[in-house]
Amino acid sequence: MKSICAIEGVEAAGIKEGKYGLALIRAEGTAAGVFTSNLVRAAPVELMMERIRRGRLGGVIANSGCANAHTGRRGLDDAAAMAALGAGALGVDEREVGVASTGVIGRYLDLPRIERQAGAISGSLARTDAAETAAARAIMTTDLVEKHALVVGEGFSVGGICKGSGMIAPNMGTMLAFLYTDAAIEQPILSAALRLAADRTFNRVVVDGDTSTNDVAFLTATGAAGRVDANEFEKALEACCRSLAVQIAADGEGATRLIEVVVTGAPEEEDAAAVARTIVGSPLVKTAVYGEDPNWGRVIAAAGRAGVEFDPYGASLSIGEGEGAVPLVTKGEIVVDLARAKAQMSGKRVVFTLDLGAGEGEATAWGCDLTERYVEINGKYTT
Amino acid sequence: MKSICAIEGVEAAGIKEGKYGLALIRAEGTAAGVFTSNLVRAAPVELMMERIRRGRLGGVIANSGCANAHTGRRGLDDAAAMAALGAGALGVDEREVGVASTGVIGRYLDLPRIERQAGAISGSLARTDAAETAAARAIMTTDLVEKHALVVGEGFSVGGICKGSGMIAPNMGTMLAFLYTDAAIEQPILSAALRLAADRTFNRVVVDGDTSTNDVAFLTATGAAGRVDANEFEKALEACCRSLAVQIAADGEGATRLIEVVVTGAPEEEDAAAVARTIVGSPLVKTAVYGEDPNWGRVIAAAGRAGVEFDPYGASLSIGEGEGAVPLVTKGEIVVDLARAKAQMSGKRVVFTLDLGAGEGEATAWGCDLTERYVEINGKYTT
Repeated sequence: MKSICAIEGVEAAGIKEGKYGLALIRAEGTAAGVFTSNLVRAAPVELMMERIRRGRLGGVIANSGCANAHTGRRGLDDAAAMAALGAGALGVDEREVGVASTGVIGRYLDLPRIERQAGAISGSLARTDAAETAAARAIMTTDLVEKHALVVGEGFSVGGICKGSGMIAPNMGTMLAFLYTDAAIEQPILSAALRLAADRTFNRVVVDGDTSTNDVAFLTATGAAGRVDANEFEKALEACCRSLAVQIAADGEGATRLIEVVVTGAPEEEDAAAVARTIVGSPLVKTAVYGEDPNWGRVIAAAGRAGVEFDPYGASLSIGEGEGAVPLVTKGEIVVDLARAKAQMSGKRVVFTLDLGAGEGEATAWGCDLTERYVEINGKYTT
Repeated sequence: MKSICAIEGVEAAGIKEGKYGLALIRAEGTAAGVFTSNLVRAAPVELMMERIRRGRLGGVIANSGCANAHTGRRGLDDAAAMAALGAGALGVDEREVGVASTGVIGRYLDLPRIERQAGAISGSLARTDAAETAAARAIMTTDLVEKHALVVGEGFSVGGICKGSGMIAPNMGTMLAFLYTDAAIEQPILSAALRLAADRTFNRVVVDGDTSTNDVAFLTATGAAGRVDANEFEKALEACCRSLAVQIAADGEGATRLIEVVVTGAPEEEDAAAVARTIVGSPLVKTAVYGEDPNWGRVIAAAGRAGVEFDPYGASLSIGEGEGAVPLVTKGEIVVDLARAKAQMSGKRVVFTLDLGAGEGEATAWGCDLTERYVEINGKYTT
């Protein structure tokens, strides 16, 4: 198993019929969640922001194809009904069922379909490779590949699946993530660890700068492995989330390349993150990476509009990693060798490192190039 | 004459050689300027933020093809040398020459070329259709059409030319605008009027969300028409800037359609502007407009991340204008007729009106659709 089914006590199932998918995951334990920062929140988000306060989940039911967003009172009732369907299929208390949706905004949920799909797969809940893959596939929309991650710590593991491809921006982009650990972790620590990990990973992925109405990440700790060092757990959780975040960026709608931007020397970590996110979200940087055009001025220009104070002539920028890194600007001096810089752009992953020379804050953000295919995918989505 | 040469006392000339263009404009008068909000400011911007404090311009020299941005001390010296070349060509005090550049960032200015081009055209400075068109063409980069505007008030006129196509975002996107009036206006009033007009027009255009290092708008009042009503002048100036702003949006890189977003019922005008800009800048809204996909949920979702408080279920959204407007959402109720909504998307201009139901603030923003062509244009720019 390569993700959630590697965690003791976690069973999964999934079905995908055209664009309509349903995933069921059963795992009882202490739980925490993080949600979209968009003012316009989908019905399942509204429901779960309330229900997650119990600090426990018994399982999750998640559908793709319809976001159940901007659907008013009826949407909230539908989300609650979906939780009840999940409770029946999973055999757990409906107040402890996590509900999540992704898909078109402004449409009502097809509850009969969800009931039928849940009935069809509840008997196949299992701890197998096939089961976790079916669940990961069920929640995909424009994603091209399923996303799994598993981090094995000292005596415990953290695993997760997620989906996410478009409408991806800081503060949870249309992204559903279901994370599990067998570590026994107290709820307040679990909640804080999830928030920090999400902030450093999922919230540093930018595909198109649009923030979804439906984002959610749930983390459930089954406790099967007993108590573990909180610090070790936080590291493993962050590593698991980082793996998923990078998979989302690499599978961004229409993407051909992953862009990784490392910002160092910022006043604070949050400043570094703001600059890194702005660069990775810049359409001009994204198109330059697509065209293998070493137009580094766009990177500097994007940094300049991130709202962080630094001296442009104290900043250094390079492309590539480690020994192979090619300097572009060194403390404001233009030192670029365009041919060598261009050579760093031919792979599946392009890394920019920007040292602002203004402090100790560091952060990394991930994104992808902007291609004609993104336009095609999003030009005809509803119909 | 359709823009600056209609203003008494304004002479223009221009030359475009491949991607390298040069414009000269002679017009003496009281002057004001607004500049990019990007922390990374081009050398001519740095120079002019200082020199415009004199409150007078005798003329302008502007080049395309090289932004003279992130070029350090040498860049500042080059910008000053360019001003001196302009002073010679225009026959005015070099401290009163407006300098502006647009093009690739991180390259040094080719001063010999600028000197040669200035020499070649200084003799042809004139008040003619051909002259204002030559100047407007000279400053174009990826623009497809020249941009002119002329507003005739009671006893005075306001005219302007500008360029702008990519790297366009709130707070002056790679945009150069040269505005002239024959009205006699005191400098503080001129300056305040320009700031307000720019804020309501140029700063509400979003093509791709990137903010340039080089944006500048200069306004010169020659005074030939004598004193005029300040209020009338402000209205005419705003109308002139709005015309240019809409032309920039319509000529956005790769655009096939103009998008106009009118937001009403916001707490304050600035809130309405923030929501309108966020919608018009959303890649998902832009691609939906390109694909004639009435995916209105993306409009609501973009509004929700603009940082403005409102009740999504108190908001109303329509597409189209006047009698032909098609309601999509009325006070949170989904009322959309997809076929009728789609029919509103087939023209060259698509208008969304969003009433937040949360106050009296109103604002309009302009943008364009996102097409495969934008990706092509920006994927290979440097080389």
